[in-house]
This record gives sequence, structure tokens and C-alpha cells, in this order.
Amino acid sequence: MLQDLCVADLSSGIKINGFPCKDTASVTQSDFFSQGLANPGLTNNTFGSLVTGANVMTIPGLNTLGVSLSRIDYAPGGLNPPHTHPRATEIVFVLEGTLDVGFLTTANRLISQSLKKGDVFAFPKGLVHFQKNNGNVPASVIAAFNSQLPGTQSLGATLFGSTPPVPDNVLAQAFQTSSGTVKHIKSKFQPKK
Amino acid sequence: MLQDLCVADLSSGIKINGFPCKDTASVTQSDFFSQGLANPGLTNNTFGSLVTGANVMTIPGLNTLGVSLSRIDYAPGGLNPPHTHPRATEIVFVLEGTLDVGFLTTANRLISQSLKKGDVFAFPKGLVHFQKNNGNVPASVIAAFNSQLPGTQSLGATLFGSTPPVPDNVLAQAFQTSSGTVKHIKSKFQPKK
Amino acid sequence: MLQDLCVADLSSGIKINGFPCKDTASVTQSDFFSQGLANPGLTNNTFGSLVTGANVMTIPGLNTLGVSLSRIDYAPGGLNPPHTHPRATEIVFVLEGTLDVGFLTTANRLISQSLKKGDVFAFPKGLVHFQKNNGNVPASVIAAFNSQLPGTQSLGATLFGSTPPVPDNVLAQAFQTSSGTVKHIKSKFQPKK
Amino acid sequence: MLQDLCVADLSSGIKINGFPCKDTASVTQSDFFSQGLANPGLTNNTFGSLVTGANVMTIPGLNTLGVSLSRIDYAPGGLNPPHTHPRATEIVFVLEGTLDVGFLTTANRLISQSLKKGDVFAFPKGLVHFQKNNGNVPASVIAAFNSQLPGTQSLGATLFGSTPPVPDNVLAQAFQTSSGTVKHIKSKFQPKK
Amino acid sequence: MLQDLCVADLSSGIKINGFPCKDTASVTQSDFFSQGLANPGLTNNTFGSLVTGANVMTIPGLNTLGVSLSRIDYAPGGLNPPHTHPRATEIVFVLEGTLDVGFLTTANRLISQSLKKGDVFAFPKGLVHFQKNNGNVPASVIAAFNSQLPGTQSLGATLFGSTPPVPDNVLAQAFQTSSGTVKHIKSKFQPKK
Amino acid sequence: MLQDLCVADLSSGIKINGFPCKDTASVTQSDFFSQGLANPGLTNNTFGSLVTGANVMTIPGLNTLGVSLSRIDYAPGGLNPPHTHPRATEIVFVLEGTLDVGFLTTANRLISQSLKKGDVFAFPKGLVHFQKNNGNVPASVIAAFNSQLPGTQSLGATLFGSTPPVPDNVLAQAFQTSSGTVKHIKSKFQPKK
Repeated sequence: MLQDLCVADLSSGIKINGFPCKDTASVTQSDFFSQGLANPGLTNNTFGSLVTGANVMTIPGLNTLGVSLSRIDYAPGGLNPPHTHPRATEIVFVLEGTLDVGFLTTANRLISQSLKKGDVFAFPKGLVHFQKNNGNVPASVIAAFNSQLPGTQSLGATLFGSTPPVPDNVLAQAFQTSSGTVKHIKSKFQPKK
Repeated sequence: MLQDLCVADLSSGIKINGFPCKDTASVTQSDFFSQGLANPGLTNNTFGSLVTGANVMTIPGLNTLGVSLSRIDYAPGGLNPPHTHPRATEIVFVLEGTLDVGFLTTANRLISQSLKKGDVFAFPKGLVHFQKNNGNVPASVIAAFNSQLPGTQSLGATLFGSTPPVPDNVLAQAFQTSSGTVKHIKSKFQPKK
Repeated sequence: MLQDLCVADLSSGIKINGFPCKDTASVTQSDFFSQGLANPGLTNNTFGSLVTGANVMTIPGLNTLGVSLSRIDYAPGGLNPPHTHPRATEIVFVLEGTLDVGFLTTANRLISQSLKKGDVFAFPKGLVHFQKNNGNVPASVIAAFNSQLPGTQSLGATLFGSTPPVPDNVLAQAFQTSSGTVKHIKSKFQPKK
Repeated sequence: MLQDLCVADLSSGIKINGFPCKDTASVTQSDFFSQGLANPGLTNNTFGSLVTGANVMTIPGLNTLGVSLSRIDYAPGGLNPPHTHPRATEIVFVLEGTLDVGFLTTANRLISQSLKKGDVFAFPKGLVHFQKNNGNVPASVIAAFNSQLPGTQSLGATLFGSTPPVPDNVLAQAFQTSSGTVKHIKSKFQPKK
Repeated sequence: MLQDLCVADLSSGIKINGFPCKDTASVTQSDFFSQGLANPGLTNNTFGSLVTGANVMTIPGLNTLGVSLSRIDYAPGGLNPPHTHPRATEIVFVLEGTLDVGFLTTANRLISQSLKKGDVFAFPKGLVHFQKNNGNVPASVIAAFNSQLPGTQSLGATLFGSTPPVPDNVLAQAFQTSSGTVKHIKSKFQPKK
Repeated sequence: MLQDLCVADLSSGIKINGFPCKDTASVTQSDFFSQGLANPGLTNNTFGSLVTGANVMTIPGLNTLGVSLSRIDYAPGGLNPPHTHPRATEIVFVLEGTLDVGFLTTANRLISQSLKKGDVFAFPKGLVHFQKNNGNVPASVIAAFNSQLPGTQSLGATLFGSTPPVPDNVLAQAFQTSSGTVKHIKSKFQPKK
């Protein structure tokens, strides 16, 4: 951060690490503002959960500032499946409902906790983590990240649903399972046509 | 961050940048967990607002992870007075009520916005900012910071209520006012005995 | 810093964090050189002090290098009023005269010192600080910063002289004073037409 | 990095981010030296591969210096299964044999390449990647990391072999498979007694 | 690093710290791949050694990723003469042959070591270091750096072979030798016409 | 920097990257203050120059703050011989006299400039640089660094005066000169008994 503000010029044709800055004269309060997290996201999908971001793509003023938010909504039974954020720690505040959450250390230790409304929990940078709504009512959290665009690598989708696909023999060996099981799982993660 | 986890040993007698780490064997899920933001803070004080932190002092697992939260509650008419965080950008999500918020650039431009429940607004690192509840009902926000302990320098209190005091002639000249006005303001910021 | 040199191309239409680089072939010694601090600045202004920068705006070779200087001149009685640098620590060397200086911690403790010619004092990153010439002769310092463009947020001017203005009721409540006092102070900080 | 050298005192009882430094007088050339990568590692294990580190744990002089190496050996058919390094980019040089390698972007795109002796390939920071020896002879690489201790999160082992275990229903939902399949995979990753 | 990938667009006319990014759609596996280190470099030159880089200039995918490799080949008697890398630590793995290597601390202490095939040695960031093949057969190493483009300042060439030249009287005084000796050494480092 | 202040406890037996912090209660203004640069240093030595530091070793408050100063005095004819600072950019302000200064890029280009009282010049991080007083009167500068302890590697002394010594054959080959010349230069840099 080499000046006060560098509001992202999202329409610039120049691609750099982060984004070029808008001209200062065209910066307004709306560059720092979003209404996108106000309402629950739709959770009628495979995992019963939806992540809605309030990061540099929707709040261009966050460019170079190193922070962003997301809202995550969970249907009853919904899961935000195991994933990593390659460049951010995450800390969540529960808006409503209950969640069972956890992260895994590189020593393969699970650190897990049951959360209820108002609770806070942190997921250290780069480690695999998940949140599961085992309750009977919807749940939601506000998640904060120390990155303007934390990125998400969802492990099931990236391993079994990539384009082009990870070879079956790699996955079968990696998960010590059969090629048939791999094909079956892959069929669930086929990219939508 | 040179290893997965460095959970703060808050009771260590060794003082360093951040905190020494607890022994890995004694790390538990409670090191990443807080219930401290679940309930509204008491706002029956001078400014009608209260900041409650969920940072490394209460969530020792945040040590070296570069993120923290606060909950801020505002009575009707309450103000979180102009202040800076010397080492963090802040981004808020409105839990309830309405707020008029703003920050000031180093070009002395005020960037302000009215917020209602569910809105998000960002305050860039190091810049003076404030939030005012001009509504008739309480308001509250979750604030996220890209620092494990953002620190707060509240300008009225630090200039007019420091120990030892900033000399009257400095403040009178700085605010282009009389020594009497300075003494009057200082009387309101006397540190509590 | 990803290469030896990235001399700022100050005339580029491309705005990024910092500046784009000039073509290496057009870099000269003058890109690392300034005569701008050689002479005392004019101090016949409101505060009796003037800050003259030798930063990336005048020494384009400083781009990405993380350091800059300023010269500050103080008339007798002159004040460099309370301000912050959002992204730099400052360390001063007194060229001539005497100064009473101080900074405020986030615990509202004033750390102050009287300085004379040849003395050195440091103001930690992001904290409010000031320098006052209580002597009968001019004073001056060389100030060094660990930023190519430290930025300055002068608290009186930013709170009472911003465009648009900070609302009177925010300032009156923040400084625990009357709306009349706020209006009076604001009248002194009106941006020059 | 705040001084020339901070050779890790691996036997210190003080735990910090990284390691405390040895007394300068006791630093020797052996603090910067390792013979541990000279010979092939044993690959007669589940995955037919072995990673041998030359990081701060074996080369204490690397403390605060931000770099380390590993040697990875692969039996014919051996796999270094999909994993992440939470705080490092990896770049490999093939010492012998052939490898099919790949990494996955957060857009679930597989970037893969066949490598032979002398080839170099990079795996960006934090992204899931793997290397598979589809050849008939052993293969080996030298891997370099921009971290003194990159850490490894092996996805099969961490998801299906953690202590305590990730709940079956989380994994079944995450991989869109049956609880039976999850139990079967878990049985292959049982921590050794 | 503010996104997953920022593959260098080496042909862009825009010069910044590092490189602008290619459009994501045009990124391929070859952006992360190099065959340039597979074969020994030619060592029939003044110093009997050659450094071949595999950095952002040849592997554009390394842009913003903070790591690179080099291969260094040494004829019998060859020397990689004393030099610094202004922005990287180096760690070498010996591919073949033997080398006597060393670095110098700012306390002017030489830390040296004899290396043979398979050995690893680290040279801390910014410090002067060298490698000498005192053996009868060629030697080679793979060197890793925590920079996408570490840069090299070779001390003999930079002091005695620069354009324009460092004045003779500076060099004579610096090395406590005669102007004649300086002129003689300079004659060996004349830039090739 | 994870808190406002971390004043170095220079007497602590614990050695870390930087220094442990003093207890906050024992911090005083003298921790941020130095009189050590007020007077010219003695220049009756081999090079006719003396560097006097005002860094974390003399101003413990600079710990974690990333900045320091030095005063450099030069007798007529005095030289601050070619050297590097492994972890800082330097920028100088001339207090008195005249100097001929320069730095060398990794492309072996000399960027040089004549300076007089009041002039400012920057030396980029990690690059070889020098200052020579070719005038008839003493000269002095204030030098600022973006490091609490920049370190100095003086090339003549480190190459020709190290303990243990760099082998003659390495230096003869590096500077393309005779072993006799190397021994002669080494005799001038013998560490004082």
C-alpha cells in the first residue's frame, strides 16, 4: 500500500497483481459500500450452502487494503464443504442458527467446535476447513478475511470436477480407493454444461 | 507466519512482537473460539457506544494470523468518535439499526455513507473515521480488521485526555482556538481517578 | 521490490499501487537526486511551519524503495500540528534550533522530549505526533520515513476543514463541546477559495 | 529479517513464530549445511514416494531466510498425492526419471505437464498439486520453497485420517458419496498405532 | 500476491514492479515449465563457470510467486566469483562434482564449507558469497532463490568493469592499492565491444 | 509490527529476529531519543570517514519500526568505501561540504552524482555504493535507512580482511590479478590484534 487509496478500476484492460486504480476524482463513497450481504443467499443447491462475497470485485475500494467479507448461508443439513483459502485467514461470526465447524492442521489434527448465534471462530491461513449445519433451521455467518480476494479451493470440486480432469489413477491411488469409486464421485462433480 | 499455528501464550513473561506460542500439545479448539461478541455491549457511557474486541487478547489462536473482529454497539444518538487504527483496515457489517459513517482522506476529503441493516462499508488503513447512530433505535455492527490487534487511537481522548497532558498552547494553536476552550475540552476527558 | 530499480514514470496515465516504471534506458542520476531540501521553507503561514517533501513525487527513483525524507521548518512559536502518517514511522534529526516534540500511544500516554541541534527522535508508525518550536529562533529538522510517500493526516484540518465537512454534531459530541465552538473552529479551517 | 543471521536454536524452550536465534559465537558452517538429500529416500510405502526435507529443522541457519529444499523420490508408479503447502510456492527440478505433474487453480482448472530429467515446473503458492511417476524406473526431484518450513497438508490423509476424525456425514456430503465409501477410505488412512 | 495467478506478460509495454499479467484464458502449462536447466552450460569463459536462470524471464508463471531456480556449471578450477543477490537468499544442491563455497557476514566472518554431490548449503540474503571448483572434474548445482528474479551483483565486474567506470582513486583507496593496480584490474573487466 | 510499541530490551538474554520488548511500564522518552549524531565523528582513520549509527542499538524504541539514521563524516579526501546494506535502501542529506557519490546497478551501470550542502541522493536497497569527499573541507551527511539495523558489508574489508581469510586463489581469480597483489591488499586489511 503505497498511497491512501487505490480504488480498483475493474474495467481496466490492464491486468496486474490486484487492480489498477481509478482516477482519484472519480472515487465515491459507493466504492467502499455494498448491500450485497443484506439478504440470505439461495441454498437450494447440491451442498445446501451459498457463499456471497463482499470483496474487491464488488467493493473496488478494497483494492490494496487487505480485507474482505463474505456471507455464508446454510440450509438445514447444508455443508460448506472442505476447502482452503490460499492467501487468507478466515474468522466467522454466527448471525443465526448453529454450525459444527472445524479445520485440519498439517499434523492431521482436527480442531472442531459447535457454534451458535453470536459465536466467533477462526480458521488459520491456508488450512483445510468446513462448516456444517446439523441443525433444523437455516444458519448464516459473516466471514472476514485478511485478503481483498481470498480465493477458494473447494477440494471435492477441484479434485473430482476439474477441467481437464485429474486422472482416475491419481485419484484412486490418492484416496486408496477403486477406479470405479473415483468415476462415481467424478460423475457428481461434472462441470455444468 | 513461519508455521501453521502459533497460539499466543498470553501468560508468558517474554514480551515480543506479537506473542510467544503455547506448546502445540496444549492447543485446543477454545483457542480459536469466542462467545464475547454474542450480546450487545453496554452503551450508557459518554459517547453512547461500546467496542468489544475479539482479537488476540481473547482468541489467542489469532496470533500471527493477521485478522480480528469487534462488535460495536451504539445507543440512539451514540457516536464511535473519530479515531484511527494504526495498523489495520476496517470493514463493517451492520447487524441492526442505522448508522452514518465516514472516513477522511489525507487530502481532507470526507467519504461518508448512510448504512442500514446488512450494509457493508470499508475504512482504509490508518485513516480517521467515525460512526454515528442518528436513528431512534440501537445499532450494532461486526467490524473486521486485518490485524490480530488493530489498536485504536481515539482523537479526542488522546489529544485532550492524555497522561501527561498535551500542552494547552499546542492544542490551542492546533485547533486555532483559545486556551480556555482547550481547558474546557480537557476537563471532559480527564482520566478517571 | 521485484527488480533492482523501478523509477517512477510520474507522467504515465496508468495508475497503480505506487507508480509504473520508466524505461531503464531513460533512467539517470537525476532520478535519485533532489535539491529541494537545501533551503528553509517559508513559515509565514497559520501554523508557522512548513513541510517540504523529498519523496517519490520529487525523487522518482524512490518508487518501490520504501524510504523518503522531508525538511520541516518552524518559525519561532511555530507548530507542526498533531498529525499521523498512515503508513510510516518518522525519525527526525534537528538541523537547527530547539523543539518540543511528542507522540501519543493508543493508551493515551504522551511521550515527549525537548530537542536541540543534532538530537534525534522517533515517532512510531501511525501514532499522533507533533513538534513545537517554543524557542526564539527558527528551527528545522530532516525527517526520514520508511515509505516512498508517507502521507499526512493533519487532525485539525481533516476534522474541521474537510470537504464536505464532518457534521457539527459529530464533532461537538467527539470533543464534548458546543456546536458553537465547533463552528468557530471550522471557520478557521475553511478551505481556501 | 532484522539482522544478518538468526540461526535457529532448535533446543530452546521458548516457542515463537519461527525460532529464537543461537548465540552468534556458536554459529558454524554446519548450521547452513545438510547431507540429508544426497541419497534416495525409501519408497516402499503406501504411495510409493517419500519427501525428505532440508528446511529449518535440519538446516537451522535457514531461520528467517525464507527458503528451503526437499528431495522427493518416487518408485515406479509412485504418487506424491494431492496436497497443499499453506505458505509456499514450490518449484521442482527433475533429477532422474519421468513424472506427470499438475496443479489446480481455484477455478478448478488442471494445469498439468509431463516432465523428464532436467525439466523444471512451478506449483503456485497454496494450490493443490501432485506428482505421479507413470514410468518404469524410479524418479526423483529437488523441490525448492520460499519458506523456511513450507508445511504440507496431504488431502487424503488430512480428510480421511485425522485425529479426531472428520465426521462421516461431512465427508460423504463433501464427496457426494456414501457413508460406506467414506468408512472404506478412512480404513486405509487409519493413523498407525 | 492478490490472486491465484499473475502469469507475466513479458511482451507488455507497461513496466511495473514485476510484470503485468497475461489474460487468464491464454495461460498454459508452458508458462510454468522450463527445459533450460537440463544441460550443462558452457564454461569456456573467463571464470570457468556459467549461471543459467530459470526465473520469471523464462518461466512467466513465476510472476508474483517469489521463487526461482538457476543451474550453475563449473569447469575444473572454475569460480562463481564473489557476488550478492540484492533481494534473495540462495540455497544450492550439488548435482555433481565438488565445490568449496563460502559467504561473508557483515562482521567480516567467512563461513565456508566443502561440498560434494548431494550436499546442500545456504547463502543468506544479501551477503557476499562465492563457489569454487577446486576439483579435477566439472561440477554443477541447482540453486534456489526466494525471488522471482534475484538479480546478481558480481563484485569484480561491477567495481572494475562498470559503465561509466568507478573512478580509479575511489578503487585505489577502497582496496588500499595503487592506481596502477586498479588500472590493471580494470583492463581485465573491460566491457566487450 | 503487531502492537504500538515494542521497545527493544537490549539486555535480554533471549535472542530473536529483532529484540524482545521491554515492559511497557518501563518505556520512557529516552527510548526514542539519541544525542549521538550531534557532533562530527573522528575521521583520522584509514579511509578518512566514520559512520555513526542511530539505530535500534542506540534507540531501542526503533525495534519493529523499520527505520534508522546514521551520521557519516568525511575528512578532505575521505571515502566511505564501496559497500552494501543487505536489508535497506539509503537516502542521504548533505549537512556540509561536497561529495561525489554513486551506486552500481546489477547491469554494472554506475549512477553517480556530485552533491553539495542540502542535496539529497538515494542508494537503492542492496546495491553497491560509495561516497567520496573530493573537496578540501570536511563533509558530513545524515543517512536514513528503512531498517532498524541496516547492516553494512564493506567490500574491501569483507573480501580481503575476513576471519578466516577468503583463499588467495579465489580472490586472484575473482579480480583477475596475481596472488601477490591479493596478498598485498590483504596485508592492508589485517584485522587489528
